[in-house]
Amino acid sequence: MPTLVMKFGGTSVANLDRIARAAKRVALEVAKGYDVIVIVSAMSGKTNELVGWVNETSPLYDAREYDAVVSSGENVTAGLMALRLQEMDIPARSWQGWQVPLITNDAHGSARIVEIPSDNINKKFAEGMKVAVVAGFQGISPEGRITTLGRGGSDTTAVAFAAAFDAERCDIYTDVDGVYTTDPRISPKARKLEKISFEEMLELASLGAKVLQTRSVELAMRFNVKLRVLSSFDEPSDDAGTLVCAEEQIMESKAVAGVAYSRDEAKMTLVTIEDKPGIASKIFGTLAEAGVNVDMIVQNVSEQNYQGHAGGVTDMTFSCPIDQKMRAEKALNDAKEKGVLAFDRLEVETDVAKVSVVGIGMRSHAGVAAKMFKTLSDENINIKVIATSEIKISVLIDRKYMELAVQALHDAFELDKA
Amino acid sequence: MPTLVMKFGGTSVANLDRIARAAKRVALEVAKGYDVIVIVSAMSGKTNELVGWVNETSPLYDAREYDAVVSSGENVTAGLMALRLQEMDIPARSWQGWQVPLITNDAHGSARIVEIPSDNINKKFAEGMKVAVVAGFQGISPEGRITTLGRGGSDTTAVAFAAAFDAERCDIYTDVDGVYTTDPRISPKARKLEKISFEEMLELASLGAKVLQTRSVELAMRFNVKLRVLSSFDEPSDDAGTLVCAEEQIMESKAVAGVAYSRDEAKMTLVTIEDKPGIASKIFGTLAEAGVNVDMIVQNVSEQNYQGHAGGVTDMTFSCPIDQKMRAEKALNDAKEKGVLAFDRLEVETDVAKVSVVGIGMRSHAGVAAKMFKTLSDENINIKVIATSEIKISVLIDRKYMELAVQALHDAFELDKA
Repeated sequence: MPTLVMKFGGTSVANLDRIARAAKRVALEVAKGYDVIVIVSAMSGKTNELVGWVNETSPLYDAREYDAVVSSGENVTAGLMALRLQEMDIPARSWQGWQVPLITNDAHGSARIVEIPSDNINKKFAEGMKVAVVAGFQGISPEGRITTLGRGGSDTTAVAFAAAFDAERCDIYTDVDGVYTTDPRISPKARKLEKISFEEMLELASLGAKVLQTRSVELAMRFNVKLRVLSSFDEPSDDAGTLVCAEEQIMESKAVAGVAYSRDEAKMTLVTIEDKPGIASKIFGTLAEAGVNVDMIVQNVSEQNYQGHAGGVTDMTFSCPIDQKMRAEKALNDAKEKGVLAFDRLEVETDVAKVSVVGIGMRSHAGVAAKMFKTLSDENINIKVIATSEIKISVLIDRKYMELAVQALHDAFELDKA
Repeated sequence: MPTLVMKFGGTSVANLDRIARAAKRVALEVAKGYDVIVIVSAMSGKTNELVGWVNETSPLYDAREYDAVVSSGENVTAGLMALRLQEMDIPARSWQGWQVPLITNDAHGSARIVEIPSDNINKKFAEGMKVAVVAGFQGISPEGRITTLGRGGSDTTAVAFAAAFDAERCDIYTDVDGVYTTDPRISPKARKLEKISFEEMLELASLGAKVLQTRSVELAMRFNVKLRVLSSFDEPSDDAGTLVCAEEQIMESKAVAGVAYSRDEAKMTLVTIEDKPGIASKIFGTLAEAGVNVDMIVQNVSEQNYQGHAGGVTDMTFSCPIDQKMRAEKALNDAKEKGVLAFDRLEVETDVAKVSVVGIGMRSHAGVAAKMFKTLSDENINIKVIATSEIKISVLIDRKYMELAVQALHDAFELDKA
């Protein structure tokens, strides 16, 4: 039997009615002859509630306990979905991460999938089970403890299952009907894309477009999983949503495919560090050990003999997710105390946002950066940090200008036109 | 190190403040030098919410999925309690049932504990862990699926751990400060007992006194676990609560120790069944297979050639927990359809309650039954079914008279006097 993976996000399983609705979609695919693997998120709001409890109980929490707590919401929806399907006379059962088992490494809180053995589930398919409902987001470490794959990790669970079971397609059901040129809540001119390349989706996902978890797109690209993003609230249709596919399947690309943003950024500056080889490695090694995901990095030009410092000195600025701010501060200050790092002070800004333009066409179109900077300058928006890759340009700006910047860039690159 | 088991019920871990408060009690015992095993329930209300969702999704649910869903609340509190203890610099970690592993049989929904291997937890104690926080109520079946031990199952988890780890004592923290002669919400004259025998507690527990799950008391009796019931809201004190202990440790007993009641009863009558050997075994075999816990059973005297029936016929009345009513009806009607059972009709009453008097002194005091029936008769309360054991007498009455019956019996047996 061909296998299909269907993933339902938090809003698609937010209550019993929605679970019933999602189950009907599953039934349609079962009727077409598929063995279906359903990946479910927790009911919307549940994981946030659990994360809040963990943070309140222990701000610098033990990530192993964090995982044990926050993974529980998916167990609930997996069981309820299996029950709902059984009520519709579809043989179904739920699987928690450790039952599959979905084996990960031990990087609690953002574990990476090591292996998904297919034997257990395939054995049940062979015995007549039509739907395996798998709790998303969770796995089991080599030590036998529960791990989670990071926020949005159920997308990654879904793609990993699609790869492991050689699924015909991986449908990601969410509360939006596809991938847009930007967030429609910010720009009413945002337009739905019919197709988007893995590379672009990757940049959009990592930039906070929130439709798909970054790692799920990486995985889909690596294993060439046909990925479709669509709404669980629209009527079923074969060409619904946005197809995320290889670049070759998209005929001509505009310079810019979309504008993304992220509110949840913190900007940190280490003021007055020695400018000598190895210093960056020490700083970012320290942060990596503490589990901080550093994003943008800028180093100022060196100032010779600044304020009595013997050698050259400089400042180092970087950004990281705002919820890792405390962790980063603690790691850097601890390193300073232990004499591993030397700096005068650590400046932290949290009222910043990141705005990015993304497009594979950028490779062959010149002047995208210039146009972006001019657009922002015309709106009197000051750029704090710039970072670029082959197919994206990101800037860090004051958070209050974020919406304005997104709208202006969407207009400037004429993204409302197909 | 001596080991102590401390169990916190739903109201004792109802929110983060209460979890913190419970953690402080655990810290006191750790300071005394104990290795502590903490068993936690779900936050109060959570399990009911989950059970409600399951029932709404699938009234005749697959008990395996029921278990997968309803066990999730305990995982949350176990993790949060471990985090809270870590914040107090007490080395702690959480354990879910399958991680211990707490091995049960596969009677989903009310599984029995088969084994609790102590190696995994003891290894961690040896490595310096001071507190193992175990999610109560849950285990793992031989097939590797999650099982639950039935409502109130965390008590049983606690006593089983106390037995498996040869604990010095098993303290059950709840929202009442001990075991009372009856429910103080019904009779303001209810008096707290300093000690109660395992046997009496067993009858009270099974009769719905709700302080302890029946099976936990059975287990405690079998393994002679020192069991203490106390409130997590009172100030810590060495003689708080009620000690549940062997009969020998209680000097003189009154005829009646307490009055118990249960609202959650259904009365069922199979009208016009054949009165011949093997019929009862067929009826109750059918119900047992369907997982119905039959409680009281009464068979009417036989009527010869009643309404044209060839042999002797009779009626069979029994009671069962109200939430098993549908299951019982389905099992009996299915059996009738298949020709396994013959009866004219099934009468179901759900507006009934069970009231019982319990006391080991009953064995040596005559006239307890007579006094009970006279007391009810004086209040004009009609008795529907009577059942007796060596140390208890139970009656099924109209539910609307339940409070009145409890109060009248409490007065009649002078339970307010020590």
